[in-house]
Amino acid sequence: MSEVDSYAREPTRRHDMTVNAPQPYNAEPPVEIIRSHYVTPTDYFYVRNHAPVPDINPHKYKFVVDGMVAKPREVSLHELKAKYTHHTVMCTLMCAGNRRTEMSNLKTVKGVGWGNAALSNAIWKGVRLCDVLEDVGAEMDNPHLHVDFYGGDPCVEENYKKGYGSSIPMSKAADPQGDVILAFEMNGEPLPRDHGFPVRVIVPGYIGARSVKWLKSITVKSDESESFFQRRDYKVFLPSVNWDNVNDWWDRTPSLAGLSVQAAITNPKLSEAIATGSSYTVSGYALSGGNRIVRVDISLDGGKSWQTARIFPGEEKGHDNRYWAWAFWDFHVDQFPSPCEIVCKALDIGNNGMPDDLAQIWNLRGVMNNSWHHVSVPAKSKY
Amino acid sequence: MSEVDSYAREPTRRHDMTVNAPQPYNAEPPVEIIRSHYVTPTDYFYVRNHAPVPDINPHKYKFVVDGMVAKPREVSLHELKAKYTHHTVMCTLMCAGNRRTEMSNLKTVKGVGWGNAALSNAIWKGVRLCDVLEDVGAEMDNPHLHVDFYGGDPCVEENYKKGYGSSIPMSKAADPQGDVILAFEMNGEPLPRDHGFPVRVIVPGYIGARSVKWLKSITVKSDESESFFQRRDYKVFLPSVNWDNVNDWWDRTPSLAGLSVQAAITNPKLSEAIATGSSYTVSGYALSGGNRIVRVDISLDGGKSWQTARIFPGEEKGHDNRYWAWAFWDFHVDQFPSPCEIVCKALDIGNNGMPDDLAQIWNLRGVMNNSWHHVSVPAKSKY
Ligand SMILES: [Mo]
Ligand SMILES: [Mo]
Repeated sequence: MSEVDSYAREPTRRHDMTVNAPQPYNAEPPVEIIRSHYVTPTDYFYVRNHAPVPDINPHKYKFVVDGMVAKPREVSLHELKAKYTHHTVMCTLMCAGNRRTEMSNLKTVKGVGWGNAALSNAIWKGVRLCDVLEDVGAEMDNPHLHVDFYGGDPCVEENYKKGYGSSIPMSKAADPQGDVILAFEMNGEPLPRDHGFPVRVIVPGYIGARSVKWLKSITVKSDESESFFQRRDYKVFLPSVNWDNVNDWWDRTPSLAGLSVQAAITNPKLSEAIATGSSYTVSGYALSGGNRIVRVDISLDGGKSWQTARIFPGEEKGHDNRYWAWAFWDFHVDQFPSPCEIVCKALDIGNNGMPDDLAQIWNLRGVMNNSWHHVSVPAKSKY
Repeated sequence: MSEVDSYAREPTRRHDMTVNAPQPYNAEPPVEIIRSHYVTPTDYFYVRNHAPVPDINPHKYKFVVDGMVAKPREVSLHELKAKYTHHTVMCTLMCAGNRRTEMSNLKTVKGVGWGNAALSNAIWKGVRLCDVLEDVGAEMDNPHLHVDFYGGDPCVEENYKKGYGSSIPMSKAADPQGDVILAFEMNGEPLPRDHGFPVRVIVPGYIGARSVKWLKSITVKSDESESFFQRRDYKVFLPSVNWDNVNDWWDRTPSLAGLSVQAAITNPKLSEAIATGSSYTVSGYALSGGNRIVRVDISLDGGKSWQTARIFPGEEKGHDNRYWAWAFWDFHVDQFPSPCEIVCKALDIGNNGMPDDLAQIWNLRGVMNNSWHHVSVPAKSKY
């Protein structure tokens, strides 16, 4: 397969995305888009691809369900839609690499650079994974099993022999409250090609990397996926792990699954100046792996003193009070004290917070940067 | 009611508990007990009382279920056991004040002092709260409701007019996977009086304070409990909140609900000396509000360098892969580098960790100290 040709049929995209890598295409929306729409417009939804975008004929499309199931089978798009109850979930996806550039600024990490807009929110429609697993006779109450997904996007990490792969524990897959779906619609339209047309997995509350696109296979297994992206990538190594000693750590470091508490400032954006003494509303987002965000703390003096922001509690959520979608927050300042350093951190209903010190969680792959978010604000004249 | 007389009928207790307050009785087991038994022996289970222990006749006992329910009613102990399916849950309870003394050592807080043994693990049997709520016709899918519990222990904070009270969100109460039970047995025996005889609530994954003892009423409401313990106590205030400005913060500070990630070293215990160069196994516990603990990091040099401990993965857990019970961990050292400072921290499957700096989470009431746990180990001669 020619690398050049393989990118010949990429979808048409907006020109105002921040492209962090062109081939495979990786892009985040302008940060001002993030806080302007609770549901991100589809064409602004961040894109994290690992290969050329497959061009799949929906009439011929099918995926396989196999492994430790009583009745392995192939499922066509038509059958998926016709046979199982449709289920809609509002869910924010976040790339584990969100805010990686901050980490790289401390000490270089390996991976596509991302600002703080590598996340987006959408309304997904599909069928519940648990309904499909039950139908094929999977052992759904065995917590030692894993459900392994592969996509139809042959990628370099798998020597072009396989697509992108990832697995989730059966406990998440089988839980009706877990809301894992095989999605065929995004914001009321068929999935765009960049987001997995015709079918992708949506794993609410997990890192985006587990929501496999262009679904090709679902395999029930006794162990995690053998995929590069489960075994090598998407792990938070200790800060002392480097490319010389990482071989000792691959297997001893757990694969990422759920999303820890995250919050970031979107307004002002990086390097945006604010007139000293002017009225200004600081705002941003916060999310967790399913828990409600109950507090967002804001400091205007680099972390010395703190106040709490107003949180939009998010009626928009998954069923049964799981908060799969982000919260928005704002904090009004009558007389803005620029130049200054704004810091934000959040707390969820499980009292989980965010680490203050980026160095503590710095890791070789630059994933899961949820350290306190700092934005230095230059002053500008009020007139 | 005479304060003196009211403590005349306290139950018989072990003499080797660490009594942090005698009346009401508050005690934690010796720290060496914690790691010696995965299921804590009942008479060593930590006790957190707010009043004299009620002396309840089980034959006359009943509790009321009322508020926003179609069919309010009283339920006797006999009816509770006869009418609803029995359900067993292994669950570690932890006092929100666990490790409060460390917080007080930084700056004085208000509250009973606790070391790092204000938690214990037991096997609880009872009936599911959701089954009772369904039976009385509660609006179980309304996430804005709260379920309010009061105990039969009139306490000073309520001017002796009411017992200890606390509420939980309906989403937790109504979720069969949430495993909230009305327990009448602990480790195979009727509940001891100190632990709520004849019926207490067990709210797995929440701070111990929500597991109301000597259950007297269950009320479905549109708002949180009016109890002192929901509105005034058990909140994590910002470090800047003090007794002069706290009135501004009561309502703006969320009530505690779920347990954040916690881990502590039990061996060596505080001030225990270890012979330099000797072989020693550091050990302790870790838990979260229901997520699996996937990594425990240990430093022997005060946090400069880290290794990972062995975790006992805990087959013993709630159903459907929720980890309501603690994990144990150990870390073997061939040649112990005393004098030194051991530090531990943990990470759950949702990538939530623990804050490094106690000062960041210091709060007026001294609750939820889950900062990195430090134990300074003096050297002693090997011979
Ligand atoms: Mo990602
Ligand atoms: Mo407590």
